[in-house]
Amino acid sequence: MALWLEQTAPDFETRFSAFLSTKREVSEDVNAVVHAIIDDVRARGDAALVDYSKRFDGIDLAATGIRVTDEEVDKAFAETDREVIDALKFAAERIEKHHARQMPKDDIYEDAIGVGLGSRWTAIEAVGLYVPGGTASYPSSVLMNALPAKVAGVPRVVMVVPAGGGSINPAVLAAARISGVTEIYRVGGAQAVAALAYGTDTIAPVAKIVGPGNAYVAAAKRQVFGIVGIDMIAGPSEVLILADKDNDPDWIAADLLAQAEHDAGAQSILITDDAEFGKSVEAAVERQLKTLSRAETAAASWRDFGAVILVENFEAALPLANRIAAEHLELAVADPDALMAGIRNAGAIFIGRHTPEVIGDYVGGSNHVLPTARSARFSSGLGVLDFVKRTSILRLGPDQLRQLAPAAITLAHSEGLDAHARSVAIRMNAHPPQDEG
Amino acid sequence: MALWLEQTAPDFETRFSAFLSTKREVSEDVNAVVHAIIDDVRARGDAALVDYSKRFDGIDLAATGIRVTDEEVDKAFAETDREVIDALKFAAERIEKHHARQMPKDDIYEDAIGVGLGSRWTAIEAVGLYVPGGTASYPSSVLMNALPAKVAGVPRVVMVVPAGGGSINPAVLAAARISGVTEIYRVGGAQAVAALAYGTDTIAPVAKIVGPGNAYVAAAKRQVFGIVGIDMIAGPSEVLILADKDNDPDWIAADLLAQAEHDAGAQSILITDDAEFGKSVEAAVERQLKTLSRAETAAASWRDFGAVILVENFEAALPLANRIAAEHLELAVADPDALMAGIRNAGAIFIGRHTPEVIGDYVGGSNHVLPTARSARFSSGLGVLDFVKRTSILRLGPDQLRQLAPAAITLAHSEGLDAHARSVAIRMNAHPPQDEG
Repeated sequence: MALWLEQTAPDFETRFSAFLSTKREVSEDVNAVVHAIIDDVRARGDAALVDYSKRFDGIDLAATGIRVTDEEVDKAFAETDREVIDALKFAAERIEKHHARQMPKDDIYEDAIGVGLGSRWTAIEAVGLYVPGGTASYPSSVLMNALPAKVAGVPRVVMVVPAGGGSINPAVLAAARISGVTEIYRVGGAQAVAALAYGTDTIAPVAKIVGPGNAYVAAAKRQVFGIVGIDMIAGPSEVLILADKDNDPDWIAADLLAQAEHDAGAQSILITDDAEFGKSVEAAVERQLKTLSRAETAAASWRDFGAVILVENFEAALPLANRIAAEHLELAVADPDALMAGIRNAGAIFIGRHTPEVIGDYVGGSNHVLPTARSARFSSGLGVLDFVKRTSILRLGPDQLRQLAPAAITLAHSEGLDAHARSVAIRMNAHPPQDEG
Repeated sequence: MALWLEQTAPDFETRFSAFLSTKREVSEDVNAVVHAIIDDVRARGDAALVDYSKRFDGIDLAATGIRVTDEEVDKAFAETDREVIDALKFAAERIEKHHARQMPKDDIYEDAIGVGLGSRWTAIEAVGLYVPGGTASYPSSVLMNALPAKVAGVPRVVMVVPAGGGSINPAVLAAARISGVTEIYRVGGAQAVAALAYGTDTIAPVAKIVGPGNAYVAAAKRQVFGIVGIDMIAGPSEVLILADKDNDPDWIAADLLAQAEHDAGAQSILITDDAEFGKSVEAAVERQLKTLSRAETAAASWRDFGAVILVENFEAALPLANRIAAEHLELAVADPDALMAGIRNAGAIFIGRHTPEVIGDYVGGSNHVLPTARSARFSSGLGVLDFVKRTSILRLGPDQLRQLAPAAITLAHSEGLDAHARSVAIRMNAHPPQDEG
């Protein structure tokens, strides 16, 4: 049974605050181990990858090769159910179309006094995508991470994926092909992150690393940050559902469980204005749990981190929703648009009773890599902007320099930076260079 | 004397690679100290701020108060040179105008089958701006950090600045007022970062912390990352100048020194196609060093990290420039536009002989907070996008759900996520809820 909170209870603020600050992850300190692995890959390159893959993944890369060949991808593609391939292609097309709209435009202009200013966007030259092995090896995540890079125009999209026991999920390789991944290597863990950041004889270094991973991968990404860019470090998934009594309790229960089945640390929260409806949803959750393949995980998540919050009305729920800053927010109410206007913090909003969050996981077109653990207060989901960077541009002629120089010189002197002042002043009292004379 | 490299020399690649990977910062390991300070501020709040400020800044906050009052800012404003105030206002207006163009637009639309999709941007609710004390307390940096937040519509912009020996640079307080900072606190160091992240009785917590600082501040920002957002961790400043022989060597030398005077770890690089011109610039640097107030710093930077690279032509310089990925890139050549087209990696580009980088530091309008240490390969300068976040939006009706459901269900089952599949399937074989019936 999940936590039950009522907004009108006198101890609500205390209990809600405590609920908000509950830790849902055990943070393993693997920094020292990861540091040693990174140093070893920097020193020994491919040989270190071979050693670690033997030890951690039970695979002999010296025999299989580090790079996954085109023929292997062909074979994986052929082995994957036709229905799954079609669904991946269907999803990819929708994701690509939506993300194409995110591509920022250059903005180069002259201001009123003729100063040329601008923002120019260029794609990152090479990106590495980490894909976990085992049960967390999701083809849909390959699409969500690789397609925005493709849309951004990244020329080199490199995927690393551990081949535990020698094999890689064929659907993951199929998804890589569908989403335009240009190179695939069968390595995982901190060693794969190190190889992407520093390069080995086989794997040329990239400029940014994205994608989910375990504690070792996360620690490795933090440690190589600066040498390369990284995406956010994702925590367990979460959903917040605002639902009135006109919903089918079974639909809402199914949505809560879809989140809970991800991970024992996942979090599903229902906010409703009707106690009886809340109780019905709770009952439906218990009922549905009985027939779920991942019942144990989902039950643990719902028991340890789930909550039903009763409010007097949905207007009063808005400050709570903004503090929760959920990764996923469903608005299953009669007038979702009115509510949405009051939402400031959410990774993604799913509007109305026919928009289960799961659609966004796969085929909605939007990205399913979204800010977790309240980080929607300050960050956004993955998108094309994560694969481009902006260069600012400034262009002055002698006239413009003359107009801007006095203020620049004043500020430079006031900051004690005389060489700054000179760099401007020296251009004031001199003959211009010959080609602009 | 700086390093002299020639691209045609047989050992060039080796020497250039070594040059590129030179560390320009001593990385102090202050993590343990910082961790203890953060814990203490979390536990004791304002009392901890009072203690640390007494110890590190020699100021008794219990007597002065933690918050800087409006009257103090009035006084600082009145004490600041009128000329400096005017220059700050002039700069602020240009910065604000330029950054207003960076504001992203919402994109809400329906696709061909009627699925509602969208990206909605909202400002971060509260941002903390760290301003260093002492000689690195630059009013121009206050403008560059605070104005993009103001343009983004951040309602609460909080500044923290240590009051070493009791005083704060009046021009910094004046700049804070000009750029719309809403609260100012006289605390610095890791304790200020902790207060911004976790809050104290006096300082309400923020959602993101930006601004430069020393090793303690940088370590504290890394440690609170996740609880709040942070900007990039900036390294020493750098400039790369591509200049032909038609430049006045003194102008180029002044630009190299403007960068070098920042910090002994700063880096100034000249790439030229004319050996004699390179020698003239070197001579001019030595000459100008003699009359510079920060000659010692600038000389150390130029000696330890400066370089002149001789190339056969500027086309051949492009791959070098892209590997250097300079924070600041000046193109002081006859046809800068032709070169610019080949530049992929740079924080900011300054075009032509009359655009010294210093103009961008103060009054160009673009931001002077830019990616250092080769991180322009994967990141951008500070801007409005750093103070907003994107929420993605999805809206389906029963018809759209029917069209998207099969692929979603297929993918969910293929990933072993049965509750995901159920959340969609359950809406297929049921009567719709009453208000959409």
